[in-house]
Amino acid sequence: MLIVMSAQATPLQIEAVAARASGVGLKAHPFHGERRLVLALTGSPESVDPSLFETMDAVLEVVHLRLPYPLVSRAVKDEDSVVRVGGVAVGGPHFAVMAGPCAVESHAQVRAVAAAVRQAGGHILRGGAFKPRSSPYSFQGRGREGLEALRDAGREFGLPIVTEALDERSLELVCQHADMIQVGSRNMHNYALLKACGRCRLPVLLKRGMGSTVEELLLAAEYILAEGNRQVVLCERGIRTFADHTRFTLDLSAVLAVQRLSHLPIIVDPSHGTGKRHKVVPMARGAVAVGANGLLIEVHNDPSHALSDGQQAILPSELAALVRQLPTLLSLTGKDLTNHASSA
Amino acid sequence: MLIVMSAQATPLQIEAVAARASGVGLKAHPFHGERRLVLALTGSPESVDPSLFETMDAVLEVVHLRLPYPLVSRAVKDEDSVVRVGGVAVGGPHFAVMAGPCAVESHAQVRAVAAAVRQAGGHILRGGAFKPRSSPYSFQGRGREGLEALRDAGREFGLPIVTEALDERSLELVCQHADMIQVGSRNMHNYALLKACGRCRLPVLLKRGMGSTVEELLLAAEYILAEGNRQVVLCERGIRTFADHTRFTLDLSAVLAVQRLSHLPIIVDPSHGTGKRHKVVPMARGAVAVGANGLLIEVHNDPSHALSDGQQAILPSELAALVRQLPTLLSLTGKDLTNHASSA
Amino acid sequence: MLIVMSAQATPLQIEAVAARASGVGLKAHPFHGERRLVLALTGSPESVDPSLFETMDAVLEVVHLRLPYPLVSRAVKDEDSVVRVGGVAVGGPHFAVMAGPCAVESHAQVRAVAAAVRQAGGHILRGGAFKPRSSPYSFQGRGREGLEALRDAGREFGLPIVTEALDERSLELVCQHADMIQVGSRNMHNYALLKACGRCRLPVLLKRGMGSTVEELLLAAEYILAEGNRQVVLCERGIRTFADHTRFTLDLSAVLAVQRLSHLPIIVDPSHGTGKRHKVVPMARGAVAVGANGLLIEVHNDPSHALSDGQQAILPSELAALVRQLPTLLSLTGKDLTNHASSA
Amino acid sequence: MLIVMSAQATPLQIEAVAARASGVGLKAHPFHGERRLVLALTGSPESVDPSLFETMDAVLEVVHLRLPYPLVSRAVKDEDSVVRVGGVAVGGPHFAVMAGPCAVESHAQVRAVAAAVRQAGGHILRGGAFKPRSSPYSFQGRGREGLEALRDAGREFGLPIVTEALDERSLELVCQHADMIQVGSRNMHNYALLKACGRCRLPVLLKRGMGSTVEELLLAAEYILAEGNRQVVLCERGIRTFADHTRFTLDLSAVLAVQRLSHLPIIVDPSHGTGKRHKVVPMARGAVAVGANGLLIEVHNDPSHALSDGQQAILPSELAALVRQLPTLLSLTGKDLTNHASSA
Repeated sequence: MLIVMSAQATPLQIEAVAARASGVGLKAHPFHGERRLVLALTGSPESVDPSLFETMDAVLEVVHLRLPYPLVSRAVKDEDSVVRVGGVAVGGPHFAVMAGPCAVESHAQVRAVAAAVRQAGGHILRGGAFKPRSSPYSFQGRGREGLEALRDAGREFGLPIVTEALDERSLELVCQHADMIQVGSRNMHNYALLKACGRCRLPVLLKRGMGSTVEELLLAAEYILAEGNRQVVLCERGIRTFADHTRFTLDLSAVLAVQRLSHLPIIVDPSHGTGKRHKVVPMARGAVAVGANGLLIEVHNDPSHALSDGQQAILPSELAALVRQLPTLLSLTGKDLTNHASSA
Repeated sequence: MLIVMSAQATPLQIEAVAARASGVGLKAHPFHGERRLVLALTGSPESVDPSLFETMDAVLEVVHLRLPYPLVSRAVKDEDSVVRVGGVAVGGPHFAVMAGPCAVESHAQVRAVAAAVRQAGGHILRGGAFKPRSSPYSFQGRGREGLEALRDAGREFGLPIVTEALDERSLELVCQHADMIQVGSRNMHNYALLKACGRCRLPVLLKRGMGSTVEELLLAAEYILAEGNRQVVLCERGIRTFADHTRFTLDLSAVLAVQRLSHLPIIVDPSHGTGKRHKVVPMARGAVAVGANGLLIEVHNDPSHALSDGQQAILPSELAALVRQLPTLLSLTGKDLTNHASSA
Repeated sequence: MLIVMSAQATPLQIEAVAARASGVGLKAHPFHGERRLVLALTGSPESVDPSLFETMDAVLEVVHLRLPYPLVSRAVKDEDSVVRVGGVAVGGPHFAVMAGPCAVESHAQVRAVAAAVRQAGGHILRGGAFKPRSSPYSFQGRGREGLEALRDAGREFGLPIVTEALDERSLELVCQHADMIQVGSRNMHNYALLKACGRCRLPVLLKRGMGSTVEELLLAAEYILAEGNRQVVLCERGIRTFADHTRFTLDLSAVLAVQRLSHLPIIVDPSHGTGKRHKVVPMARGAVAVGANGLLIEVHNDPSHALSDGQQAILPSELAALVRQLPTLLSLTGKDLTNHASSA
Repeated sequence: MLIVMSAQATPLQIEAVAARASGVGLKAHPFHGERRLVLALTGSPESVDPSLFETMDAVLEVVHLRLPYPLVSRAVKDEDSVVRVGGVAVGGPHFAVMAGPCAVESHAQVRAVAAAVRQAGGHILRGGAFKPRSSPYSFQGRGREGLEALRDAGREFGLPIVTEALDERSLELVCQHADMIQVGSRNMHNYALLKACGRCRLPVLLKRGMGSTVEELLLAAEYILAEGNRQVVLCERGIRTFADHTRFTLDLSAVLAVQRLSHLPIIVDPSHGTGKRHKVVPMARGAVAVGANGLLIEVHNDPSHALSDGQQAILPSELAALVRQLPTLLSLTGKDLTNHASSA
């Protein structure tokens, strides 16, 4: 149920509606737009009589639609959400490049890559300290030490950092040191982790499951918003199909589907989405031309010796060349790379 | 690396090999067969010289093969593993029927279904107390209360129980009350949960991810075995494909692939695998004829009022009719329903 | 539009309805059931007034439903269709085993396999004379000569033959020499070929496209029936999915979907459906237990020297062992192997 | 087997090699490059002794590699092929926009769309006269009459035309009236049709099957080239996956895979690839940014009344806006829209 209120509603009027909702077991989530204010009520609104709210002050309309993901939906917020990661804005007109190594291997390595990302024009430093690996015998990441190395490198080069949390223990560490929490494809359905992220104050980068529909991705995001954290950026990273020329099939149309259904930003990961270095830059260009709100790219200064996924990492020079093409591409979809600080 | 030893090796001889392995950073996992004993060494055996072990007492051969999942592989254990759930055996010649409601709804409901499962000839009672749901607003299960109701129903009707754990908190409760831990399709890649299950003493029912290959399923099982728990039963439950006449596409050939590659038992869930009641019993028959080691079936005494997935639950009478057909089917693949107690 | 008439309607009464339908641009296809006669009208019945027919003699009801595949649908014919291939019945209670080499290689080879199929208890001899191959440089079949060899082998051992037609030229030859026309997976959407088959008097074995839904399979069959040939048997042969342990994923639930939606028989091809010899027999058993109306199996007396697809052909002895298990399996789904001649 | 010859080899020297190849049952296909000339030998070159050719005049090297698609492969021709359609070049630096209605409905309709395509800056007029439809009761196209209307509209507005052939009969008509033959997704495996196209002198637009791999697409093209027609343009049009937010999943990475493996041009069809109007223009932009050699787009002046696939047709004004963005996009991948005539 949506309670549409005047954009001029006072805090007291809003509070009154929220209190009445609470009285019938519902929780009110306010979305402030330019032209109107929407209170999305979650819980079991089916059984609640709309007339409870219809005559309250500043209430314009009560919409009794049944949205599968009310907080994530464009129905509650017509305007694009902009998520702040450190001083970097993602969403709406703000395009962000997140780049870095698949895994943090050492202080020296992450420092070298961070310098290169900064010089290439990237905005956010990515790097895995806790790695979800199919095999228990594969390199599982440097853990806390890797996280601290990533944080130090980010600070030194003025880049906010994003890194993956695998469970509540690693989430706690990530929350201490990072600027954005990544939830990986394999954990998109890990509802305990999603809820824990929802109780954090950091923005969340939520990757689509490799076997998940767009609707399931939005429902996973809804888990985070329902706990009170609205700073969510979605990420398309390729799905499982019969096609065997790439590791996954990058589904760029998912960007459009998400942007139509939701106010949340969505970025694209062409590194995991293709699994092949020579396809990363062209697919990145494709993602930008389609209208993605950012890119998540694996960069390594020495890909052939990377401890994980080296075959899909591009060189810093390739990243720099890509970033130089971005302004031209972004001009076609009404986005830009500039003014991150001032817009924040 | 596999150390093949005589079946008559003494504990002391085995211990000596394990100690030497430990000295070079490897962990030894013994697999006792009728004709030989295999010590599978995990860690980074690539760099270890085989001659370290070759001349030790009772060592017949050192095999330097690189297995992606050494503990789960048939290479270490040629004979089928038999997993004990309460007094029920699963694997090898022992076929087990696990049945019950999708979700535990109330004491009365789970008691009624348990009685029906017992009468129909089922062996293990299933039922969800903690439910992983795509939507945060769907029924999430009765939690601890549901778990206790399931346990009581199981005890009353002499059925061991299996129920899903979603995270470490629910795992702790499941370990207290259940006979078998279920790891659901959405958590097959939740490595923190898999490792925690590996540290439990209960058998684990591990379901294939809906977007996962058979190799990934075996690697997920390897996570559990690597932590010391070998009591793992795998489960095929349908994969994501373009086909739209069922909710998922049940991949019965996965049963054969698993049985060729691994010594672990594999059962089939035709309820989630089809999502449609009228397809459950025929697909169950198909699974048995292919050679599955058991079935996991949703049964409800009043499917049209079920709180979750009612459209795929069969009636107790349908379960009973299916179980009556099992002896005939099982005779074709050298399995049977009898002597569970004595074989335990 | 369906015109439901009394089962006792006279030819004259039926003709009168058909003539009136023809007058408004529709074609009437009669389906005789035990309890009623249904005239399915194809064309553009949307614009036609039902009252045109409602008061005619022997007309019980005019059903104005919009069926995507009116002639194939169970709505026009509640009873299972039985298709006759030579003296062999397929459909309803009649189960048929079609077996033989992937490709006819020589007179000697097909004769040897035919003898083995006969001895093993198979009913229909399969073998490709015109082979659709992904590569223009792969063996394309023996053509007319192969077809004649197949026909001779079938005659000698009393087995009707089924073989693939690729285009109108090969169709003409197939119609001269074979007892059943096979339309392969790659041609399921070849509408020119389907229409040409619809104008033949031979039964047609129509295989599901590897990227096609069940609905598309039924629509492809509708093309054949719409041209006047109702002798169609469908075949599930595996679909394209991400799973990589088999060549295709055999979708046994398609058998159930077809049987629910259509009166046509459906058989299963576990050879192409798995692509691996050791999976063929167990998946064949699974198909029978699910309720398939028959099997299409590749058998070769010397698989390792087969000119095509040898890795999926089973030995004659394996076929014989499978056929011995069939009566037990068929008893579970109300079918049998006997009385083909008398039922014809 | 590849015979690498000097780029200065004389016709007589080439002929001598071809004759010797013919003498051992092989067919020689010459590929003239700037730096070298390659004769690809097809047939069964495995058994032929390379020394037969090694000492012949102008022969530099004999490469005995086994290519699955020798004529289509980059191994025989390192430079991009450029295909001429009327006066329009497709491939290498030449980007082409093919646009028009899904189906030709009437002279007036196709004339109006052709005028709009011309004005928007499109290069080639597309339109279906023979339509492959899943249902026998759907609109099947205007046939010969539609083809003539398309031809007339193309002539009037100076646009070469491309239209689909379904079988040998329609192919004959298409060859008489069109500038390029389209082979649709459903016919990619129709080898009889591919061979017939190989014997035509018109360029062929070959669409990827919705359930086909990139390798199968290249093998299908090889069928055409093996018959002597090298004027083939490939087309990515979406594949079948579990994703349900679009009709098919447009696999833009296939563009990159094809360009790496083959010298043939590849274009993208975002209309069928998404099935939804609002996704067509952004996905078209994505295709260009990835590096496609052209676009195939459905345009209709009155989409809501289109006889087929209206929900995926864009308006002429949307096409015009897209074409205005192309120069900017093409500049990023080294292609352009100009000088088609002079390059021809």
